[in-house]
Amino acid sequence: MVNEEYLKMLQHKSVIRELSEYATARGKEIGYENVFDFSLGNPSVPCPEEYTEAVIDMYEKENPMAIHSYSPSLGLDSVRETIAQSLNKRFGMDYEMKHIFMTSGAAGALAHAVRAVTCPGDEVVTFAPFFPEYMPYINTTGAKLKVVPADTEKLQINFSALEEIFTDKVTALLVNSPNNPSGMALNEETVKKLADLLYKKQEEYGHDIFLISDEPYREIIFKGAECPYISRFYDNTISCYSFSKSLSLPGERIGYVAVNPKANSGDKIAAMCGQISRGIGHNCPSTTSQLAVAKVIDETSDLSVYETNMNLIYDTLVKLGFEVVKPSGTFYIFPKALEDDAVAFCKKAMKYDLILVPSDSFGCPGYFRMAYCIDTEKVKRALPVLEKFVKEEYGK
Amino acid sequence: MVNEEYLKMLQHKSVIRELSEYATARGKEIGYENVFDFSLGNPSVPCPEEYTEAVIDMYEKENPMAIHSYSPSLGLDSVRETIAQSLNKRFGMDYEMKHIFMTSGAAGALAHAVRAVTCPGDEVVTFAPFFPEYMPYINTTGAKLKVVPADTEKLQINFSALEEIFTDKVTALLVNSPNNPSGMALNEETVKKLADLLYKKQEEYGHDIFLISDEPYREIIFKGAECPYISRFYDNTISCYSFSKSLSLPGERIGYVAVNPKANSGDKIAAMCGQISRGIGHNCPSTTSQLAVAKVIDETSDLSVYETNMNLIYDTLVKLGFEVVKPSGTFYIFPKALEDDAVAFCKKAMKYDLILVPSDSFGCPGYFRMAYCIDTEKVKRALPVLEKFVKEEYGK
Repeated sequence: MVNEEYLKMLQHKSVIRELSEYATARGKEIGYENVFDFSLGNPSVPCPEEYTEAVIDMYEKENPMAIHSYSPSLGLDSVRETIAQSLNKRFGMDYEMKHIFMTSGAAGALAHAVRAVTCPGDEVVTFAPFFPEYMPYINTTGAKLKVVPADTEKLQINFSALEEIFTDKVTALLVNSPNNPSGMALNEETVKKLADLLYKKQEEYGHDIFLISDEPYREIIFKGAECPYISRFYDNTISCYSFSKSLSLPGERIGYVAVNPKANSGDKIAAMCGQISRGIGHNCPSTTSQLAVAKVIDETSDLSVYETNMNLIYDTLVKLGFEVVKPSGTFYIFPKALEDDAVAFCKKAMKYDLILVPSDSFGCPGYFRMAYCIDTEKVKRALPVLEKFVKEEYGK
Repeated sequence: MVNEEYLKMLQHKSVIRELSEYATARGKEIGYENVFDFSLGNPSVPCPEEYTEAVIDMYEKENPMAIHSYSPSLGLDSVRETIAQSLNKRFGMDYEMKHIFMTSGAAGALAHAVRAVTCPGDEVVTFAPFFPEYMPYINTTGAKLKVVPADTEKLQINFSALEEIFTDKVTALLVNSPNNPSGMALNEETVKKLADLLYKKQEEYGHDIFLISDEPYREIIFKGAECPYISRFYDNTISCYSFSKSLSLPGERIGYVAVNPKANSGDKIAAMCGQISRGIGHNCPSTTSQLAVAKVIDETSDLSVYETNMNLIYDTLVKLGFEVVKPSGTFYIFPKALEDDAVAFCKKAMKYDLILVPSDSFGCPGYFRMAYCIDTEKVKRALPVLEKFVKEEYGK
């Protein structure tokens, strides 16, 4: 008999994936250029040319045995050292190689970090709106995900709701800044307040509380926005990173865990991740990807298009009377729908070939997400359609 | 508090890795060319030039956005289709794309396959000698690994011991052919007998019993040896493959699960693996590796050196009076040690700078493994040293 639990999961398809499949099918009917698909968070700018050149150079010049041999389970020493030094320079940290664990993207990083610092039965707190894949990352460990309702006004943290939800079973919190789906980063005031609360709770409950910081959008920050490096404010922090967005390499599946050197067992957590990976089939990224990203560690793709697109969309949304917080970064924006039922709202938009994602699966009903990692030209063509949709359906 | 279980695992280092670290350290003292390191199963021949050329061509000509975009969680459709067709042609199977799930090597394949067809509390049977990483793959699922003692005479299957160990809790068996550490493949007679027994046990217990077939060494078969494709003999078979050995790409972390189309839920198991991967941080290999292996799907590295080395070593071992079964393939051989305590035997060999792996961690004490994926020239220099060691320590 196969495992019924996984069999059942097959019936619950991701809303985002279904919308994206619809958009692709519709594109075949009317031409994909006529479908305004804001559903998928796939980078729309190429990786830096330096990355491509580094890979070609490596394959042309290096010994294939050297570049294709097994990576140690924590990642290649030289790559981990390069990452530690880059983070130290940029964020004033004191990472050493031993604090870095190479992962298969932020997903791999989060799955390992949660396992390292929680036990079955523990509670892990996250904040709405949140990336729905947090549920399988956490629920499969035997820990339980608890969600703090959104601060919909500022998209920071609803602290009174957080205090209410806190129990002595909470051993980890999971934050995502800048955030998918809202585009907002936690500002310094929020991060400090969160750190103060966690230090207080650690003392009150007499055990460690880890802060797992999901940071794949850290490099996509817009002019004037604040995005403090969270680990600087709280010792028991594990930062989870991916090169998917900063280098436009989602297919390479490469990222890392960076453990604050001052964390309890800070010297051991990366090594523990290596043990965790033994059970789940070794999650280490490919040796060649590791070597290649290390060669362009301080580069990013040209990310400016995301800010251009954000400003165009934000201005139009405001003009049309949407309630919306201006994003700090990412390639997402999270306006309030024009009716309580965001699913109904997004269904109506589909009639106009506007593909928007209702917010229900992000734990914050009544909103919708637009992923604007698409050509600016297409954004410009989409805005009059958005205007028409709002006018015809909602008389605005 | 960090998770104590993983913290404790840090204390149990792999014997193989420790030996390999010793060999590296000793190499720094006396020159690595003077250390006869038979400890590590790292391919010693380069990947085919066609692979390197395919990668360079892809990076030079293709749109970076296309080759670096997210892979679907089951793998790229085109790659899964290519693999299915290649297997059908070679082994007379009827795989379709839906039966293939791309994984991070054989490790990822096994970890997913076990989760798909067992539930916590089930028993999974494997056969000594076995690859020690099977323990974490299985124990972390909540299922329990049970080991059938070795058939040390022929290195096939000890069927009476298997029947004794069988209970109605057994829902999966894990076989590895050709085998690490013994180098032996299960012959057709053994596979048929195993299939007959499993069909009988399925009927007796009234539930499915899956056969998980670990096949990373499938392409390394020596002249005259039999290595039947196991899935042809038993419907409920899941084949787990890796390109690490056949294409000498261990660092790329790429392999797959191939589900027998006639298996119960055979159309769903690959998709279930996709659901399993959600919880453990998405284990899919990189898009570029997938595209590249598909371009050389029917190629292998020049694997002939392994047979040359095997013959040299086997002949010397026989001459020196070792009890040893001639391997069918792989780059391992598994002779009986010259004293009951194989650890003591291997420690004595270290005085001669011969690095051999004692068999205790493979569940079959009293033997040792030699991994002969090294230059033939070095094998030739090692043999007189082996002779000297045996003469001086055991008077043979």
